[in-house]
Amino acid sequence: MTPTITAFERSPDRGRGLARDMRVRWALEEVGQPYEVRLVSFSEMKEPAHLALHPFGQIPTYEEGDLALFESGAIVFHIAERHGGLLPDDANARARAISWMFAALNTMEPPILERQTARLLEGDKTWYEQRLPVVDDRIRDRLGELSGRLGDADWLDGAFSAGDLMMVHVLLRLSGSGILDEYPNLSTYVARGEARPAYKRAFAAQLAVFTGKSQTG
Amino acid sequence: MTPTITAFERSPDRGRGLARDMRVRWALEEVGQPYEVRLVSFSEMKEPAHLALHPFGQIPTYEEGDLALFESGAIVFHIAERHGGLLPDDANARARAISWMFAALNTMEPPILERQTARLLEGDKTWYEQRLPVVDDRIRDRLGELSGRLGDADWLDGAFSAGDLMMVHVLLRLSGSGILDEYPNLSTYVARGEARPAYKRAFAAQLAVFTGKSQTG
Repeated sequence: MTPTITAFERSPDRGRGLARDMRVRWALEEVGQPYEVRLVSFSEMKEPAHLALHPFGQIPTYEEGDLALFESGAIVFHIAERHGGLLPDDANARARAISWMFAALNTMEPPILERQTARLLEGDKTWYEQRLPVVDDRIRDRLGELSGRLGDADWLDGAFSAGDLMMVHVLLRLSGSGILDEYPNLSTYVARGEARPAYKRAFAAQLAVFTGKSQTG
Repeated sequence: MTPTITAFERSPDRGRGLARDMRVRWALEEVGQPYEVRLVSFSEMKEPAHLALHPFGQIPTYEEGDLALFESGAIVFHIAERHGGLLPDDANARARAISWMFAALNTMEPPILERQTARLLEGDKTWYEQRLPVVDDRIRDRLGELSGRLGDADWLDGAFSAGDLMMVHVLLRLSGSGILDEYPNLSTYVARGEARPAYKRAFAAQLAVFTGKSQTG
């Protein structure tokens, strides 16, 4: 059965691949699972029909027969559990890859997202410019630790996994900030993710929504 | 094999159960798995031996034979996968419970944690008092959506699951703020979690570390 995901009708990032549907598209491309996309507007996202799928009125959602899921982490994990290629077979290595998924979403993303949220919700406040260096230093603390762990390895723990997929996409949120450039091994790590054929196909698909050249939705 | 977790030698919350080891203790108590605790100081957490276990120098970690995990979400999930009682047997219900785990950690916790981080890192800044209502309104947006979904149900999706465990513990971070009181069904939901015998045992164990009456560590 072909799953259906939701994505922004008009992505705020203008097709730069930073919205969370990109993670799900990338995972589906990595495992070779075709999918449908239903585009939703910002007003539709807060209406009862969408809230029934996603309690917080966001994208992406994932529908497959009787199953409806929300939260990109849970959706990517669901895909990784049902297909080969995103989680190691060895039980301990699998549990460690899942640790990296949670680390990307619960340790690394919050300070990075705070940077974007501050611009969006506090960009016109008197304190915004003065506070930004404080926010950036919180991000640097985490990047320094991640950089130390990655070292000169290609991926965080052995072969590419759903943990790397999540971490690369979270780090991509720093595009344009210049902060990632301070950590050459992390910049290379992100570039390694972007170079994967599955990433490229997913990126092209979400960009096509913005440029109006999409096949679906 | 008895697993060993790490916890703060001196918890910043003075035993109020808000540190992330509480989630892991609670999960272990729910499934009836005994465990050992190794206490670490703030300086030890940033030393190579602990960084080898936790790349971001935090607690909790989880060691069981050859396996070493970090991130409370991943550890609770590992416990839930290997024991009955924290995830439904039905595949779809299980995937939805996992959605709630990720929602607690990636959607609900970031704005709530921002409130604590702001006090800790920006409490002495000129903008702190002025900014706090902005932060609190971000939290209220999420609480309103969660309250709407929960309605008058006992738990988020059928029986108590690891998703509820995570969500209740994340909401407990609002203790003392008064914000949770604005959502009576969420206050009752949190109280329902705290009333579980497994929660009480876990709470007592972490409090004993602070009062110096701990059996372990």
